[in-house]
Amino acid sequence: MSQTEFQIIQQHFADSEAAFSRPEIVRGIGDDAAMLRIETGQILSFSMDVLVADVHFPATADPELIANRALAVNLSDLAAVGAQPLCFTLGLTLPLVNEHWLAAFSQGLVPLARQFNCPLVGGDMSRGPLNIAIQVQGQGEAAIGRDGARDGDLIYVTGCLGDSVLALASFGLDTHLGGEFKIDSAALSAQDRAYLHEAYYRPQPRIEFGRQIVNVATAAIDISDGLLGDLGHICNASALGAELELSALPLSDCLRGSLPEELQQQAALLGGDDYELCVTVAPENATQLESIADDLGLRLSRIGRMRDGYGIDCRDSEGQMREFDASAYQHFGDVE
Amino acid sequence: MSQTEFQIIQQHFADSEAAFSRPEIVRGIGDDAAMLRIETGQILSFSMDVLVADVHFPATADPELIANRALAVNLSDLAAVGAQPLCFTLGLTLPLVNEHWLAAFSQGLVPLARQFNCPLVGGDMSRGPLNIAIQVQGQGEAAIGRDGARDGDLIYVTGCLGDSVLALASFGLDTHLGGEFKIDSAALSAQDRAYLHEAYYRPQPRIEFGRQIVNVATAAIDISDGLLGDLGHICNASALGAELELSALPLSDCLRGSLPEELQQQAALLGGDDYELCVTVAPENATQLESIADDLGLRLSRIGRMRDGYGIDCRDSEGQMREFDASAYQHFGDVE
Repeated sequence: MSQTEFQIIQQHFADSEAAFSRPEIVRGIGDDAAMLRIETGQILSFSMDVLVADVHFPATADPELIANRALAVNLSDLAAVGAQPLCFTLGLTLPLVNEHWLAAFSQGLVPLARQFNCPLVGGDMSRGPLNIAIQVQGQGEAAIGRDGARDGDLIYVTGCLGDSVLALASFGLDTHLGGEFKIDSAALSAQDRAYLHEAYYRPQPRIEFGRQIVNVATAAIDISDGLLGDLGHICNASALGAELELSALPLSDCLRGSLPEELQQQAALLGGDDYELCVTVAPENATQLESIADDLGLRLSRIGRMRDGYGIDCRDSEGQMREFDASAYQHFGDVE
Repeated sequence: MSQTEFQIIQQHFADSEAAFSRPEIVRGIGDDAAMLRIETGQILSFSMDVLVADVHFPATADPELIANRALAVNLSDLAAVGAQPLCFTLGLTLPLVNEHWLAAFSQGLVPLARQFNCPLVGGDMSRGPLNIAIQVQGQGEAAIGRDGARDGDLIYVTGCLGDSVLALASFGLDTHLGGEFKIDSAALSAQDRAYLHEAYYRPQPRIEFGRQIVNVATAAIDISDGLLGDLGHICNASALGAELELSALPLSDCLRGSLPEELQQQAALLGGDDYELCVTVAPENATQLESIADDLGLRLSRIGRMRDGYGIDCRDSEGQMREFDASAYQHFGDVE
């Protein structure tokens, strides 16, 4: 490619507003490696998520929104371990250098980078099918794992569940929940359409909540594969089962108004891509957990309890067990 | 995808021989983030490289070789800053779960992971066009940048240059050096074919050399885009120009025997993907640099000198200036 194209890319990344400095960063963009100085006693946490065009987002979606979402889902992994973001790297492959696309993509990284003081410090770019790999680096004195839940711990989730898969359906895209899972987008109010668009493209990484619950929660995970799948990871890692109360699942008014109850529950349990946190806590620390969320103005719902045994039981408001197929949603799974 | 496929992937990554533990790793595969404890006084270095099918390797290449190469080119970035490898993450997208392919790919990560004590600690996988993002983490008390070269510093390179692009041509693939750059693969000896295959798929990251020269070299870079391009980065970052002696370029017998002199020089200067190190050093420290390479049994060639000014002058054995087009090779460039 020409030097001009090279310069265009330098402009959109090296000179981007997302590539600001912070004191821990010894070297950012512009060398063979980025370099960080980690404070004594801090643990470095890092997580990589890859987003693929037409798998994780429509290839024709607004590049600013794609960028925002790509950084958000990565920051959400740091939230789940209770780490404070430090910086991120970007591995971007794209079919051709389109200056407008790059400018919008680069700009889309800025708000979350600024909000969480998490600048772009390096990465790689290449021609190829549109693919976005981001790795976030964070730090903390301690970290929350998936393996610390104990029998009798209460299970909480932040925010609302199921909106992301409803959003996909509202965009007219097929979802992994099958042909039944459809809505008439034209029947949605403008407000609901805007709400779903934001829910899908601008998930809010629960960084501050994650940080504050580091020594309160026994386990945490972010909901990327769907509540049943992700809570299942906590169950497996902690060698426990769980019970969920279906009536306690936090559902948005938009979701309640758009689908029959059965599909609302499917969306909340199996939908995935919500990027809320699922957290377990000892009963004696539940009040503390709730007050942390309260102080942050964050919706937090108690949805069940960890128990001895295996598997996740879902009970409706009459106490009847209900079956859901937790294997519905996997982009191959996550190896972290 | 089915649970069985999920298990297959767990087997090939979480339970892979490449995912061994080391004391610095607080958490590896199996949580939302991997975690590291960095020793006091150490700088963390990290670098991400993305390899795309049919851009950086033939999609049908042996997955074991692809994996080896993908990890090697990343480790080479750590070598260039003089860092000691710690661990790596992998973002893999592939069109379908093929157990044989995954087993071979996973196995291909093991030799370099073991050699450099650099285990797999996390990442992400998804369906999509074949694309491999790797980020390596490393540490060191100091680091070599691109910006420390001074007027009069001597320029050295490790190993031989130009073999990688010759290998591509020998595989029958087009190279960025144009239609002239062709060889008759059938005319190569079996030994030459094996040599080029190894040069391309098993570049040797110069980790130990990089570490030992941290306080000796003034600047270093690994040769991924071609000597002229990469030395150009040192020139730009150090605000200097450079002079190269074409007759001093280290060329393999294979390269010398396969092409006319003009194309040998093009391969060495513009070929790229050599993953050798280009290093600058003050004249008074040159002996020390040479003896480090000597002790490691590493070929090291003095090829020129940094000078005031702008641009890279190439002189032949008669002292005549020769022109080469350094812009020939860019996969969009590298934003680190």
